Amino acid sequence: MNSVTRILINGIETTQLGALDRGLQYGDGLFETLRVRDGRPRHWAAHRQRLGEGCARLRLPDAVMEPLAEEARLLSRGVAEGVLKIVITRGEGGRGYAPPVAPRPTRLLALFPPPDYSPSHARDGVVVRLCQTRLGHHPALAGIKHLNRLEQVLARAEWHDPYIAEGLMLDHEDNVIEGTMSNLFLLRDGQLSTPELSRAGVAGVTRARVLRLAPSLGVTVVERVIPRGELAEADELFLTNSIIGLWPVRHCAGRDYTPGPFSARLATALEAEHD
Amino acid sequence: MNSVTRILINGIETTQLGALDRGLQYGDGLFETLRVRDGRPRHWAAHRQRLGEGCARLRLPDAVMEPLAEEARLLSRGVAEGVLKIVITRGEGGRGYAPPVAPRPTRLLALFPPPDYSPSHARDGVVVRLCQTRLGHHPALAGIKHLNRLEQVLARAEWHDPYIAEGLMLDHEDNVIEGTMSNLFLLRDGQLSTPELSRAGVAGVTRARVLRLAPSLGVTVVERVIPRGELAEADELFLTNSIIGLWPVRHCAGRDYTPGPFSARLATALEAEHD
Repeated sequence: MNSVTRILINGIETTQLGALDRGLQYGDGLFETLRVRDGRPRHWAAHRQRLGEGCARLRLPDAVMEPLAEEARLLSRGVAEGVLKIVITRGEGGRGYAPPVAPRPTRLLALFPPPDYSPSHARDGVVVRLCQTRLGHHPALAGIKHLNRLEQVLARAEWHDPYIAEGLMLDHEDNVIEGTMSNLFLLRDGQLSTPELSRAGVAGVTRARVLRLAPSLGVTVVERVIPRGELAEADELFLTNSIIGLWPVRHCAGRDYTPGPFSARLATALEAEHD
Repeated sequence: MNSVTRILINGIETTQLGALDRGLQYGDGLFETLRVRDGRPRHWAAHRQRLGEGCARLRLPDAVMEPLAEEARLLSRGVAEGVLKIVITRGEGGRGYAPPVAPRPTRLLALFPPPDYSPSHARDGVVVRLCQTRLGHHPALAGIKHLNRLEQVLARAEWHDPYIAEGLMLDHEDNVIEGTMSNLFLLRDGQLSTPELSRAGVAGVTRARVLRLAPSLGVTVVERVIPRGELAEADELFLTNSIIGLWPVRHCAGRDYTPGPFSARLATALEAEHD
């Protein structure tokens, strides 16, 4: 998981980046993490679309994305299973926060081996904790997958126990927002809910796929504010992201959950969906 | 201002950084910006101390700072006027938010030419605007100078008019916190106030010097929550940071201010203070 296999920066194979890149200096950029399978990145169009939304929010020129599809194909060719991380930054731009008038963005694509998560995570569910590190409210940044990730780093640093697979994060109003690396869904009385992300959180590509797929499985779904107290009342609880797919939660914050039939059906539907 | 003269990374002169550095991937690090004058960085001990506080908050090993003084001296030697930026990151650490158990941090020192701000800024005061981009609350990150600076980038991108020297930022509760690159002080009825920074903002080194110097100039100073409405009621308003020193505000949010006697005395005291 930790050994990168190949990196392309602006189309050139390298391991080095300009030290004054605004991605490093200010976290001035975006990223995407995709699953690679059978020689190609999965759900490319959806990741490409979210990256485009991020570029619009950060006012990064859309043109930076043009070579990405070809470069992603190049890195993925011949790879049976892997992880592709794409980073887009505003490039180098001197000292000072003011973005350059004519930025020359940086495109970084890095191919990693597939993750080594236990297969039992998806099958039997995971143990999840509540993090003490909270997510601040940033309407201007909420939803997009930007490079300012210290909250997630601090939250993930709260535990070392490998038995705990993920940590849930609350905002300062005690609403649950997401996991450190995943989105959260609750099923109760046949209705599926997921936290609304207008003030904090990352609107995951797999989360969007769940929002689209759930109704076809006979379940209504709603994005809304979810107080932490509702976690204990859920019939089923599960996590999603592009790398893990779907993990049912079997224990969280003192309560046991039984990985339920809806989680299993949805996981199958997600896995079966082509792209 | 924009052309860097020299960069040292982990003691080696270079322009390139490892592309998987967590500073780029997550903004997992800290920085300092110092004034260089007459061949040496000014107020080294104060910057070193704040960096140490940042390392403690982010749980970066203290040892990363040991070579900094010598490297800063090396870069500053023979430089009459300049700006030294120091960046410390958690180094490379694979894919995933979990910090490596034994991180190998990155030290980056970059020497820039002195800024080209108009001398009238310090003498006659500056025009300041109120930014629309707000600062979120992050008690775990407030006060330290970390690398997650997208809020500042978005705020600074709100204006291009060179007539406007700085933008003030509010939190979501309509309290004023700081400028995009500076701290703020208000004088009213002989009492100096500056926003308390326990939930948002950067506790500047020059701000700390003002807190220490003001009483010796016969003025009490208090750190407190400052609603935006108080801006209009101030007798004097001024901004500080290590590079600009002190800039009086002569216009902000529809009100004119007269750069006052206290600002002038304090600026002189700051400039005269040796280190």
